[in-house]
Parts: sequence; structure tokens; C-alpha cells
Amino acid sequence: MRMRHKKNLDTRLQAVSSCLIKPGRDEWDFRVQEEKCIDLAAYFQNDNPVYLEVGCGKGGFGCTFAAEHPNCNIVCVEKAPNVIVIGCEAAKKQGLKNILFLDTAAEYLTSYLPPKFAEGIFLNFSCPFPKKRQQAHRLTHPRFLEIYKTLLKDGGVICQKTDNMHFFEYSLESFSQNGFALQNISLDLHKDPPEDNIMTEYEKKFVNMGLPIYRLEATVKPE
Amino acid sequence: MRMRHKKNLDTRLQAVSSCLIKPGRDEWDFRVQEEKCIDLAAYFQNDNPVYLEVGCGKGGFGCTFAAEHPNCNIVCVEKAPNVIVIGCEAAKKQGLKNILFLDTAAEYLTSYLPPKFAEGIFLNFSCPFPKKRQQAHRLTHPRFLEIYKTLLKDGGVICQKTDNMHFFEYSLESFSQNGFALQNISLDLHKDPPEDNIMTEYEKKFVNMGLPIYRLEATVKPE
Repeated sequence: MRMRHKKNLDTRLQAVSSCLIKPGRDEWDFRVQEEKCIDLAAYFQNDNPVYLEVGCGKGGFGCTFAAEHPNCNIVCVEKAPNVIVIGCEAAKKQGLKNILFLDTAAEYLTSYLPPKFAEGIFLNFSCPFPKKRQQAHRLTHPRFLEIYKTLLKDGGVICQKTDNMHFFEYSLESFSQNGFALQNISLDLHKDPPEDNIMTEYEKKFVNMGLPIYRLEATVKPE
Repeated sequence: MRMRHKKNLDTRLQAVSSCLIKPGRDEWDFRVQEEKCIDLAAYFQNDNPVYLEVGCGKGGFGCTFAAEHPNCNIVCVEKAPNVIVIGCEAAKKQGLKNILFLDTAAEYLTSYLPPKFAEGIFLNFSCPFPKKRQQAHRLTHPRFLEIYKTLLKDGGVICQKTDNMHFFEYSLESFSQNGFALQNISLDLHKDPPEDNIMTEYEKKFVNMGLPIYRLEATVKPE
């Protein structure tokens, strides 16, 4: 069963290869060679602003963003191939040309994406890794913030949303201690939701349960 | 009636002058001369660490802090004389020797207190000034953060508590944008209250109403 599942997944991944880059051992993707960044302008066939979502899950946010912002591009990163494939299939079905999925872990982003390409970075409902010994896995751990710094354009903004209070507390501390200034913080986003807010699946669920959504924006402070 | 009230207040203020410094026009206080800082070691008669509370109201927190920390001193600042007098009377009644009340506005602190004297600064349930046009009055406005920087010892910590969500959002942004790093943030302090937390009158009221208390610590980042 396991083999069959794997075989199906490979078939599905290959079927969406027009919008998916899966670096590493998989031979079928020829666009990423070792130590060579993805040529985003060539992929998107334009020089429009490019955004990045780290941990895109099933790609709901990314597809909505791409559909609502035809003059922007978005790169959606997710390390679980059986999850990212769902986003790729949705994007293909919707005929979206301004979205690219990248199947890798956040640790390796600088191997595949060029420096200072990102107009903004989205962290939507990332796994909170609640145990202290897991905190190096949190996507707002200093080791990831350093990666985001190299990918962000000057003046670029990181936007984080989460339902997890302790993860949000941790993130506020991590950003402020590692060279970022915070702005547009909301401790209850849906008390007064911004017009351009894109609701993710998680977000809808938590809002329906009456739970607060936390949001922040962080920009790199000039040295 | 107004005159009589004023006369009573003056009498009460004079009766607590051993623990109150009221600079400015009032002739009866001779310890502060123009452009001369208060000699804290002379007042407290020791070199113990000195803390500062800005906006102490009726002095409940300050008196509890002083009683619980006999090897520390605290300076409690409040600009409303009819309010600070209540704290002075309580401190006198309790025989506290390690507390000093200072009746002035936060704007003038550097005129009366020496540079780098403060081990820590407490901002407890300061008025949130909710209207945007009033934001320069908030005690976490950048103009006050600059004052705290001059008063704080190297490594000193500002500790803020509030029940007001939007004021807390504002404060997180203001600290992070003005050279402070944040730590020990809590978005619901009484979910897991620290042992040494001193409950203010406001805090008890809000906790009894089931409302969250927000808390942060901020330290000056090295240049």
C-alpha cells in the first residue's frame, strides 16, 4: 500500500510540474541544478513584485493571493510533498500563472531563491512547535529570521498570522531581539479585520470558534 | 469649597513631606532646587538598587514592592497630587523607608532623577489614551522611551502591564521601533502567573472580570 501511495504521489507531482519545483534527488525536475538559484523572472515571464509564503500547506492562501493580485507573483514553499501537491493541483485547475510552488524545507531557501527578491514574506498559521525543546523548528526562530533577511528586499515586510498565543509571544520576542521593528500588530485581527485580509482554512476555523487571530508585521531595521 | 479642598490637600501633602518630593512652585519643599537632581543615596541612606514606577496612582504597587523588597528602593512618580497623597499616607502608615514619591509629570523626570540610576522601570496600567490624537500622552510613546533610556542602568528592564489591548499593541510596536528588545511577553498573564507578580488594584478588578492582562519586558539594545 505504501509503495502504491508513493507511486500515486509521484504521478500527481509530475502532473503539476509546470508550477512545482522539487529540488533534490528527484531526477524529473531539471530546472534546479545544484547551487543555482531559480530564475524567477524567467519562470514568471515578467518582473512583477514577488512574494514568498513559507509553509504554504495546501496552498489555499497562495492561490487566493495569486488570483487577487494578478500583477504580483508568489512563491509558495512547503516541505511535505503530499500536501503541496494539493495546492499545485488547485493552481493548475484555476489556470494561475503567477504562482510557483517550491517543495523544500525553509532551511534551504537561500539555496534556491535569489537574495533580496522578496517584496514580502507570509507566515500563515505555521506549526507552533509548543515544546521548548522544539523551538528551533518554529518558523520565527532566529535561524529562520536570518534567512528571511537575506531574501527580503530593502524595506520588505514579513507578515505573520497565528492562532497560537504562546507562539505569537515567542515570535514578537524573536523579531524584536533580532533586528526587526514591529508594526500593525493585532491581538484580535477579526475585531476590526483589514479589507485585504485573506482568510486561510485554519483562520476560518478558529474565527468560527470565536478564538482570536494574532497578526504582526516586521521589517528589518537599518544597521 | 474648592479653596477648602485645596487647603486640605496642602495640609495632607505637607504632613507626608518626609516621603514626598513635590518640585516646582510649592515653596514648602526645599530638597529640589532648580536643575539639581535628587540625591537618592542620601534620601534612602543606602546604595541599594533603585527602581522607578511611572504613573503610580494611589501607590498600591509601590508600597507592596517596598514592603516585599526591603533591600531595594523605589521611586514612585505621579502627577496628580490628590492621588499621590494617598500613596504617601499609606507608606507613612506602614513605616516604609525604602519608598520615595515624586509629584511630577513623566516629561520632567530627567530634571529630578540622575542618569542611569534605575535598575528597572514599572509601567502599571498606565492611562491608554485610546484616541490617536492623544497618543503622545501614552507612557510608551517614543518621547518617553527616550527619557527611560537615560534613566535606566545598562541592562535595566522596563516592565509594562496593561489590560488595554490596543495600548499593548501600540507599546509592542513603539518599543521594537525605538531600540528596545522585548522579552517575557505574556498575552494572558494570569493563565500562568509568575510567583513574584504584584497585583495592582486595577489588575485585581480586571482579573476578576475574566479579562486578560498583557505584560512585556523591554531592554535597551546595545547600539
